[in-house]
Amino acid sequence: MPRPASMASEQSPLLPSKDLASSREDGNTTADKSRRRSRLREAGLFVWALVATGAVIVLAVWAQHGQQTAGHGSRSAKRNLVFMVSDGMGPASLSLTRSYRQFVDGLPEDDTLVLDRHFWGSSRTRSSNSLVTDSAAGATAFACGKKSYNGAISVLPDHEPCGSVLEAAKRAGYMTGLVVTTDITDATPACFASHVLGRQMQDDIALQEIGAGVLGRSVDLMLGGGRCHFLPNTTAGSCRMDDVDVAALAQDEYGWSYADGRAGFDALKGGERVKLPMLGLFAPNDVPFELDRRDMNDVYPSLSEMAQTALRALEKATAGSDKGFFLMIEGSRIDHAGHINDPAAQVHEVLEYDKAFKAVVDFIGQSKTETVLVATSDHETGGLATALQEPGHLPVYNWYPRVLANASASCERLAAALQDYVAHRPSSLSDGDLKAWINHELVVSGLGIPDATDEELALLVKDPEASINTFAAIISLRAHIGWSTHGHSAVDVNIYSSGGPETDMIRGNVENTDVGKFLSHYLDVDVDKITEELKEKMGKTNLEAVEAESTALAWGGEYHIAEERMRF
Amino acid sequence: MPRPASMASEQSPLLPSKDLASSREDGNTTADKSRRRSRLREAGLFVWALVATGAVIVLAVWAQHGQQTAGHGSRSAKRNLVFMVSDGMGPASLSLTRSYRQFVDGLPEDDTLVLDRHFWGSSRTRSSNSLVTDSAAGATAFACGKKSYNGAISVLPDHEPCGSVLEAAKRAGYMTGLVVTTDITDATPACFASHVLGRQMQDDIALQEIGAGVLGRSVDLMLGGGRCHFLPNTTAGSCRMDDVDVAALAQDEYGWSYADGRAGFDALKGGERVKLPMLGLFAPNDVPFELDRRDMNDVYPSLSEMAQTALRALEKATAGSDKGFFLMIEGSRIDHAGHINDPAAQVHEVLEYDKAFKAVVDFIGQSKTETVLVATSDHETGGLATALQEPGHLPVYNWYPRVLANASASCERLAAALQDYVAHRPSSLSDGDLKAWINHELVVSGLGIPDATDEELALLVKDPEASINTFAAIISLRAHIGWSTHGHSAVDVNIYSSGGPETDMIRGNVENTDVGKFLSHYLDVDVDKITEELKEKMGKTNLEAVEAESTALAWGGEYHIAEERMRF
Repeated sequence: MPRPASMASEQSPLLPSKDLASSREDGNTTADKSRRRSRLREAGLFVWALVATGAVIVLAVWAQHGQQTAGHGSRSAKRNLVFMVSDGMGPASLSLTRSYRQFVDGLPEDDTLVLDRHFWGSSRTRSSNSLVTDSAAGATAFACGKKSYNGAISVLPDHEPCGSVLEAAKRAGYMTGLVVTTDITDATPACFASHVLGRQMQDDIALQEIGAGVLGRSVDLMLGGGRCHFLPNTTAGSCRMDDVDVAALAQDEYGWSYADGRAGFDALKGGERVKLPMLGLFAPNDVPFELDRRDMNDVYPSLSEMAQTALRALEKATAGSDKGFFLMIEGSRIDHAGHINDPAAQVHEVLEYDKAFKAVVDFIGQSKTETVLVATSDHETGGLATALQEPGHLPVYNWYPRVLANASASCERLAAALQDYVAHRPSSLSDGDLKAWINHELVVSGLGIPDATDEELALLVKDPEASINTFAAIISLRAHIGWSTHGHSAVDVNIYSSGGPETDMIRGNVENTDVGKFLSHYLDVDVDKITEELKEKMGKTNLEAVEAESTALAWGGEYHIAEERMRF
Repeated sequence: MPRPASMASEQSPLLPSKDLASSREDGNTTADKSRRRSRLREAGLFVWALVATGAVIVLAVWAQHGQQTAGHGSRSAKRNLVFMVSDGMGPASLSLTRSYRQFVDGLPEDDTLVLDRHFWGSSRTRSSNSLVTDSAAGATAFACGKKSYNGAISVLPDHEPCGSVLEAAKRAGYMTGLVVTTDITDATPACFASHVLGRQMQDDIALQEIGAGVLGRSVDLMLGGGRCHFLPNTTAGSCRMDDVDVAALAQDEYGWSYADGRAGFDALKGGERVKLPMLGLFAPNDVPFELDRRDMNDVYPSLSEMAQTALRALEKATAGSDKGFFLMIEGSRIDHAGHINDPAAQVHEVLEYDKAFKAVVDFIGQSKTETVLVATSDHETGGLATALQEPGHLPVYNWYPRVLANASASCERLAAALQDYVAHRPSSLSDGDLKAWINHELVVSGLGIPDATDEELALLVKDPEASINTFAAIISLRAHIGWSTHGHSAVDVNIYSSGGPETDMIRGNVENTDVGKFLSHYLDVDVDKITEELKEKMGKTNLEAVEAESTALAWGGEYHIAEERMRF
């Protein structure tokens, strides 16, 4: 293609100059006319060539842009990645929650959750040692992009540590955050910022998360529950085996800001006033189920509130940076509702997760920085089915959201109330009185079930310790919601995404490790380099030692973290 | 943009002619030199302009093409659509079958089904009158693109008929086919070629399917089971209420070729020798479960064999046409395995469905005609979970495909064998002897379970009529496969596709009616016009009459189809 620059270097001026204009006025000879015609032709040709060349450039740029945006969008150096985990949410949780919402809010039958509108694909979840994964192996797949055994916290089947995307992101200059509704030391968040052989080693995990591991501090922001793992066992609210004051250590040695209650959370002003690194532990263990938390909003922040705060805080902190942030947000307790088999607690957990998902989508809508949202589950919990055949009856082709809508408390809360009442039971209270109290105060008022059978109530009186399962069975039966286990199942889980650059990598049906590989690929960070550093600094872990330790933990005996293990 | 044509209309020749070449040789004056330079400049400018203009045209065409193919591919007038239905297959069936196959064939943990590699999205399934649909309302959503009530065969909640995509395709010049492994008059195929108020009206459905409805014949090819609905009740193999010989009527009045066994199927030579319209009824009712059919391959063709035959037959029949074909292929009995709660039968049904799916994908690979494959389920059946907590035990995070691999017969076949044996039980046979026979011949040899408890065996002896459920419970318990119902559930079901033109319409999470709307949109046919014709010719159906009829059917009383109802 001829280029304007080379053409312009010819001897005669190519632009129609005053020369041409003036010759038009005084030239009358044949030669003049010929020259004039010639110059006019040249001028015409030049304009044609110039316009056509301009068109080529415009079209080429436009076509190039089209190519980029059609496949995976144009890339920018600065980018944010939000990864959401709906722990224990299988496919059935979606139709459960969607139909519940349609019923409660009087919405049309084609109304959907925000999640539904971002359905992207599905993920296969088996771990390296079982067809049914746990959250630890699941989150290791996300964090490292590799399969491991159930219980593994970012270590592989050979007991070697594997670098996490969060650690690699931090090293690459990103800001990083973890938001959960369970213990911040629980398996899912743990896999992004610690490496231990067994998920029960939460004392270790807490230390590594604040920066006491071999890599130093990788997390800039942690919001959630699990305060007890950060308090020394000389303190009432502690669940540690040792007397390490991790909260104090975090502040004194690693520079963390610290908040431990609603007032502290509110002081963050939705992320506007967060001094990073920030450790916010708003519950001794789990944040209550959303179904219960609604009544304790002055005590505990919600998942969506914490998510919004984290997004704003990280956005502000990276405002002047050429790198963005990586944020993991977990709807941790969808899983717990599944373990308990409590369908009412589950729908409210999923609704709150949907709200947090929407907060991220809205954030992306207003953000000037390229941001991708990917959300998936680690596994399904409970073998949930939106259908239950009552014993001795033919199957009915329906289930009943109104039953769930009548519940005002989770089975967890009702069981705790029953156990508390029984612990303080006056000696004068007969079993019959207790049964009447249970029915009135807990089953009718809390569970919203007006027709508990005498057999069901007798079971609650007889075995308050197992009452959480009894409450769950009572409400599930009425709602026609089925469960096959109190553990996990192997069904593929859904993937959701905002779409955007590279997200076609995880469209369709993929392995959970493909999701993990996407995370580091999108951020363009090197987890393998982190793995090498971890191996070098930690060496291969001694499994026997950890097994002995696990046994000690199971016994509940006193346990002190040895200095060399703390570094792990 | 200057156009070459207008520029070329100027007085002087624009192309560098011999004029220019010859002047180069003899011209030596200043004026000559000036003219020569001028002409050289003009020639240069012209070439530039021409090349640039050419580039504009090339780029514009390329960009335009890119725009078209990025969204939904280029369209061609002749096109085929294959729609596959995995009746009753929910998300859990996939991980069940995938892991089973990995185990049995010693495949790596990331090996997948062909279906997995074509995962496209998911479908919401609720019907107009329940959160849990049946196959009739499900197939009405596919055929008409509209929600209706459970039991409806392409009629709407107002009891008006709705035109099906198959009927509209036939009117538009496409060839059409239905392939199933259950009765060809069952709900799913029925919705594509008949209109009745209740799915149990299979006598009517058979007549409408062969062409005796108001629209005349819409189907060109039907392969499957359900022969009994086509034989008069004066014949041994009939399940009709009346003495209409539908098979004879089909051949004599509507020109159908007819085959009723393996020999007849084999004579079709894989579709090379099919004289359309072709009615192939290869089983009195259901084709046996694939798990059992493998041992009766000389009696019954498989789903994948029938699918391949149909594809070739329709390809041949449309070879000279400017229209292609619409073919519906149903893996009908995944649903039945779910109803029975038989996990071994289910994995083999899904594997065979996967094989049929692959046959379609391979067909598309070699076809010269644009062909799209879309596959989905109408609903989930059984509340299947790939996890089962044994009563009195803590949950185990695993399930065991080897248990299913040991089964060599379906629970349906074993129950039939037991009932047959008991019916001919010699009076000398004690309950103990029967128990031993059941254990040896059925439970150990057939179900592959070596450790049935005395309680389980006693139940089989006591209640052979319910033995199908007992067998299913025995194998499900060992494999750790859970079920919540013998009916359907409300979980969203997966959508699979070859991709191709317009298929982005159903990517992500959609309503089952969106799948139906896609089918007629892709074929560019007008179902509403068919609806109008149906309404005109049929009028509004009398619900009371049908309800009375349903009652009569339930009673099993003699029933004759009135002339005016036959036309419906």
